[in-house]
Amino acid sequence: MDLTFLGTASCFPLPSRGVSCIVFRRDGECWMFDCGEGSQIQIHESNIKPGKLTKIFITHLHGDHLFGLPGLMCTIGQTSSEKELPLELYGPTGLRKYIRVSLELSRSMLGFDYVVHELSVPEEELPEDWETWHPKHTADTGPVHPNEKEGRLIKPDENGVWHCCETNQMKVMAAPITHRIPSFGFVLHEKPQPGKLDPQKLKDRGVPPGPLYAKIKNGEAIITEAGETIRPDDVLGPKRPGRKIVILGDTSCNSKIAAISRNADVLVHEATLENELREKCVGNGHSTPEMAAEFANDINARKLILTHFSQRYRPAAHELKEGEESVTKLLEQAKRVFINKDLIAAEDLMQVSIPAKK
Amino acid sequence: MDLTFLGTASCFPLPSRGVSCIVFRRDGECWMFDCGEGSQIQIHESNIKPGKLTKIFITHLHGDHLFGLPGLMCTIGQTSSEKELPLELYGPTGLRKYIRVSLELSRSMLGFDYVVHELSVPEEELPEDWETWHPKHTADTGPVHPNEKEGRLIKPDENGVWHCCETNQMKVMAAPITHRIPSFGFVLHEKPQPGKLDPQKLKDRGVPPGPLYAKIKNGEAIITEAGETIRPDDVLGPKRPGRKIVILGDTSCNSKIAAISRNADVLVHEATLENELREKCVGNGHSTPEMAAEFANDINARKLILTHFSQRYRPAAHELKEGEESVTKLLEQAKRVFINKDLIAAEDLMQVSIPAKK
Repeated sequence: MDLTFLGTASCFPLPSRGVSCIVFRRDGECWMFDCGEGSQIQIHESNIKPGKLTKIFITHLHGDHLFGLPGLMCTIGQTSSEKELPLELYGPTGLRKYIRVSLELSRSMLGFDYVVHELSVPEEELPEDWETWHPKHTADTGPVHPNEKEGRLIKPDENGVWHCCETNQMKVMAAPITHRIPSFGFVLHEKPQPGKLDPQKLKDRGVPPGPLYAKIKNGEAIITEAGETIRPDDVLGPKRPGRKIVILGDTSCNSKIAAISRNADVLVHEATLENELREKCVGNGHSTPEMAAEFANDINARKLILTHFSQRYRPAAHELKEGEESVTKLLEQAKRVFINKDLIAAEDLMQVSIPAKK
Repeated sequence: MDLTFLGTASCFPLPSRGVSCIVFRRDGECWMFDCGEGSQIQIHESNIKPGKLTKIFITHLHGDHLFGLPGLMCTIGQTSSEKELPLELYGPTGLRKYIRVSLELSRSMLGFDYVVHELSVPEEELPEDWETWHPKHTADTGPVHPNEKEGRLIKPDENGVWHCCETNQMKVMAAPITHRIPSFGFVLHEKPQPGKLDPQKLKDRGVPPGPLYAKIKNGEAIITEAGETIRPDDVLGPKRPGRKIVILGDTSCNSKIAAISRNADVLVHEATLENELREKCVGNGHSTPEMAAEFANDINARKLILTHFSQRYRPAAHELKEGEESVTKLLEQAKRVFINKDLIAAEDLMQVSIPAKK
């Protein structure tokens, strides 16, 4: 399980740093979180295969998180052999219209199907001036694209949690975070994992080391040569808790997602501007390193990864010119709050492994 | 006067080569032709200032010519000091809806105004299956963006020429070229330029070398110390013809734009695939180097610049791996037809000067 940061800048892309895009990978399957302009170019610098993307989650519809999506979809269609399952997209209402119109006007056939599941946006998440300049923005428009299959409208449960999807191994939930426009954070929760295999127990029952070990480790029962059925519970230790990864988009307040974020193994949190610019930062719906670190403490996160840095902060490895500052400044500010803990500043193409729990 | 190639690949962008985007520059003013994804990143590698863009022309609405536009507009808004005049955009019908929906759904305020002038698309330019999957695609949708000012619908004159715009020094015309979707080529025609200054004539009338020389060269009358008025025609040689630049987008046949392209000083023409793949190439609405060179001969172009290469052809300067081919192959094929003439293959960030005529 790992995260690959394809873009770590806010606002607009530069040759030195792309805009928001993160790929979560588990057992070869890839899920993307946000897709700013140029993400498909960055992918080629990484070891992510675009054809392996099965789900794309969009935190909010600002261009630096969204404008790379239609191009990426076209490129997957042009370069990957036919995908069997539809590509599944999740994001706030409006996402379906954006994709539909972009593909329709560019007359792009994809060679694979896609489906958009929209997260309903509650009234209270809309900015005050919402109605004044695009009252109809969530309405679907025109005919459906030939590659579009019918998606769901995902509504919150009684606890204010949007249940996006569930696979054999994972569950993805979302909840609103505060930004200038409706914005969601995503919580990826791995289901409990099989316990540790006790090889002595298998040997005692006459099973030699080999492929049967892998089978039983994956939760399947096996039958020995002597005809005896061995169930995973017979030879595996207690189940291990699954990992929890919390990926937030642009945010100045995370109170509504705190409850489902508790004890995250990894928290990805934006830190757009330094602490000294907190007022401006919060005014724009963003966080300072201090705010990110405080939230990490609040939810008892094990590891905090900062990202979404203003382009005014140069990548840490760059040689600074007179008057320039680097992302290291933001990292140091977070360190003063998230003390003696696992804390890093993401950089483009950085890959972060998330080890299994013991 | 020069052209800067910001992207020279077809279909999808790679780190080694971006998709279609060309900037024409004259006296500091910049006009962009097509804006594929990542064009705003490429700009930063060039000496073009995004804030100097006053007009953007889109040849057709395929993503590799279009998907960089909303992001570029947002970035201009975020990074340039307020633009006084609206940014003017020109392209086939559908362009206005694409920009409006992209800006509206991403809730992007620009900090400057823009206006979209759409080129009407005649029935005969529509592919046969046009109506089957987006009959309403040209309809405008929803409320107008606060930064959008009312644009024109440009219709062809009796000769099948779309007159896009005229400035003090330039005229831009368009005509359809054949592609899978409606596509236009653009002809930039500079107006006749002042003739050469004869300094002896000015000296004879008692005007010493200095700022008055520049004034009269720019077409203004001057008054000497003795009170005599000297008009430009008195001291300038015959007017010099203006330059003509023809920029075509994706095309497999240019017959409708040939008449207004004659004697082009520069022809920018796509050459997507090699001659041996002509059938596939034309089937996809594209040209081979031979086809590009034949058209350059037909219109008596002085200089031919090839661009829009399939990513299967690596940039000329790249070290080729086993089995790889480079753009040089395409260039050589064009050379066999456009013989002993000025011919180059564009590459990303290449800048081509277009000298004034004598």
